Amino acid sequence: MDNRIFIKNLEEQVGKTVTIAGWVDVRRDHGKLIFIDLRDATGMVQMVALPTHEEAHTLANEVRPEWVISVEGIVNKRPEKMIKKGLNGDIEIEISSIEILGKAKELPFELGSEINIDTYLDYLPLTLRTERSKAIFRIQASIVSAFRDYYRSQGFVEIQAPKLIGDDAEGGANSFDVSYFAHTAHLAQSPQFYKQIMVGIFERVFAVGNVYRAEKHSTTRHLNEYTSMDIEMGFIESFRDVMRAEEGMLRFLVERLSKEVSAEFSLLGAQIPSVPKEIPALKLREAQELIKKETGEDCTNEPDLEPAHERWLCEYAQETLGSDFIFITHFPLSKRPMYTYEDPTDPGYAAGFDLLFRGVEITTGGQRIHDYDALVAAIKDKGLDPEKFNYYLQSFKYGMPPHGGFGLGLERLTAKLLGIENVKEATLFPRDINRIDNRLSQ
Amino acid sequence: MDNRIFIKNLEEQVGKTVTIAGWVDVRRDHGKLIFIDLRDATGMVQMVALPTHEEAHTLANEVRPEWVISVEGIVNKRPEKMIKKGLNGDIEIEISSIEILGKAKELPFELGSEINIDTYLDYLPLTLRTERSKAIFRIQASIVSAFRDYYRSQGFVEIQAPKLIGDDAEGGANSFDVSYFAHTAHLAQSPQFYKQIMVGIFERVFAVGNVYRAEKHSTTRHLNEYTSMDIEMGFIESFRDVMRAEEGMLRFLVERLSKEVSAEFSLLGAQIPSVPKEIPALKLREAQELIKKETGEDCTNEPDLEPAHERWLCEYAQETLGSDFIFITHFPLSKRPMYTYEDPTDPGYAAGFDLLFRGVEITTGGQRIHDYDALVAAIKDKGLDPEKFNYYLQSFKYGMPPHGGFGLGLERLTAKLLGIENVKEATLFPRDINRIDNRLSQ
Repeated sequence: MDNRIFIKNLEEQVGKTVTIAGWVDVRRDHGKLIFIDLRDATGMVQMVALPTHEEAHTLANEVRPEWVISVEGIVNKRPEKMIKKGLNGDIEIEISSIEILGKAKELPFELGSEINIDTYLDYLPLTLRTERSKAIFRIQASIVSAFRDYYRSQGFVEIQAPKLIGDDAEGGANSFDVSYFAHTAHLAQSPQFYKQIMVGIFERVFAVGNVYRAEKHSTTRHLNEYTSMDIEMGFIESFRDVMRAEEGMLRFLVERLSKEVSAEFSLLGAQIPSVPKEIPALKLREAQELIKKETGEDCTNEPDLEPAHERWLCEYAQETLGSDFIFITHFPLSKRPMYTYEDPTDPGYAAGFDLLFRGVEITTGGQRIHDYDALVAAIKDKGLDPEKFNYYLQSFKYGMPPHGGFGLGLERLTAKLLGIENVKEATLFPRDINRIDNRLSQ
Repeated sequence: MDNRIFIKNLEEQVGKTVTIAGWVDVRRDHGKLIFIDLRDATGMVQMVALPTHEEAHTLANEVRPEWVISVEGIVNKRPEKMIKKGLNGDIEIEISSIEILGKAKELPFELGSEINIDTYLDYLPLTLRTERSKAIFRIQASIVSAFRDYYRSQGFVEIQAPKLIGDDAEGGANSFDVSYFAHTAHLAQSPQFYKQIMVGIFERVFAVGNVYRAEKHSTTRHLNEYTSMDIEMGFIESFRDVMRAEEGMLRFLVERLSKEVSAEFSLLGAQIPSVPKEIPALKLREAQELIKKETGEDCTNEPDLEPAHERWLCEYAQETLGSDFIFITHFPLSKRPMYTYEDPTDPGYAAGFDLLFRGVEITTGGQRIHDYDALVAAIKDKGLDPEKFNYYLQSFKYGMPPHGGFGLGLERLTAKLLGIENVKEATLFPRDINRIDNRLSQ
């Protein structure tokens, strides 16, 4: 439609005849006057059909919510007392003609009405059409492009990591099986091995793609398929270089969000966080001592943080350190994967970190073992079979620099940025144990 | 490594002491003089260790191909008669100290030596380190970012389409089964349904992600997992709007490639194609008549083109029409998927196209049915069960505009742009019936 104007640009067209197109959001029949709110991808505008344009008036009578129409009309200024707040609140289209492009059946519920999460998910092709959902996923698109643009600007090369993997070498509780001809393959839980391999080629790489976790829970926090944003970088001095690389991206991200989608944040009542020059960092043991001292709860012998303690640390970081983000470093080596590098200055502890944001961990990262013999020994230490890692191990056999990286879940980050309780609302088509699009039969 | 200089920037450092780091590419022992070619992600440089720096000389004696080292040294101009062509051909680093960052075992073959495709794939963590492989995958990263940047600039919104799907509604010969808790799920063969659904939300969307085809062949053309670049756009007048949208991207792409990776094209001896203002288009029947007239081969009753005819049409387009690209439109409706829109001006034929480039089809696209009742009828016409499409069908039940789109395989496009015969060489970690990283047991 060559001459079509997007609804967000109508303010510039006052007094002119324009063609617009979109979905009928609401239709109000006042007898002689029929009002239609028309919605396109960019916004919403009120239109009015007068009996003077007979054909258009008849069609305006016929249309129903979610019909797709193209409309020709004049952009009029509203009288002063009729001006509403928000986009196009001061204009109205006087319809001169209507063309019906697509009809709709009767809706199961009014778009935008209060529905429970299961109904919301049962009807995503419809329920994603609300301003709220659109804002969420426009923001998500902005996040993922900022992630890529930042690392590209830093000399990282994008890689396409495979998702179909062979041996589920790290042990299979959380992996999905795939019938691969005469074999059983698996769906990757992360691009970890491939991004490490690619450090051997490009030194600095990033990957954005689906990953899979066969978690048997359906909660507000779990997803069985999600989008992981990953980097890996070579020639680091320590895991702190990886923390700096994440901070740089986060600063770039919040600037991009302010520029591109601040209206969407407003619509959702959410705040774009600020990222300090250096995000505060505590060793796990320091964090645990702090929790003990301040709350009386003794978690100093735990190898990890409870959700309540993650929340407490985030509140502490915000109130005391003025940061929405806090790094927790030096988890016990025993609780980390086999490729984890031990901090030579703190034996027994990982040269790595979690990043906490608004009450939850959003990133795990760190330095990796790069020496072949050390890695083979670490694999054996975990009770695993080095032979199953033979492909990955080639990288180390044939020379690798000190390196590290991190992974960041796109949907969880989206949810936390927007204050969305259920991560499924920040996932376009979420899969869980009970649902792939439709609910699965029990 | 804060003070490290990338090798491609050494020319600016003549006379200075620098720190560089990378992989030992070649080491030549001339007794007193030891020459080392050092390779990092950005390039290669020759270094020399003199006996005057005793410690460095001893270490230079010790290192072997693919060891990872950091080196401090002075950047010297070479004498006039020693200047070589190419990057850093006129400089040499005189080593003052060496630090070993990572050792390597003996290589199975010299990096860059002639090996067959199976050995190449058996050792990707090593074989991807050649200049040739690096050039291929830098170009691939450039293609995929150009695709996204172009459509973002045109108001398209990026979506994360799921790859785990439920019912394999279109019939299962080519789909992989996934054990999904108590159910059987499938791996998506395309993001088709989800990108169409999202037209109902954002009007214009794009998606880049893995897709899966359970093809039982291992040829130079087949991949079981590949990256598909997809768009879908609403409010089109006809499928020709989609062709225009693809042309625009291709023009943007070739400009980006010229700017970003022309050195990599040169290294591979490949030409960046030019994209005409309007890519020539022939109806399938016109193309078949032409083939008959010019070659004597009668394929006028075929519903599709043979590979040889695709090649002939590409040669014809180049020689007669001056274009590396040619659209073939109006395939018989019977051979196209159920959502295919019939050209109202040419009954029985699809309002859609293939795009041929350098001898093969790289894109299939077209307009889709947007009317609910028409789509349900088309599904039944194909002998399929509309109930299995109930989730997707919601979009059409609740109002959709005329729309269309296309899909483009990243690896095939990469291969064709670079004149690579085997698409597996344009795929980072290719999967086929015989291989997932390692060869599968028979």
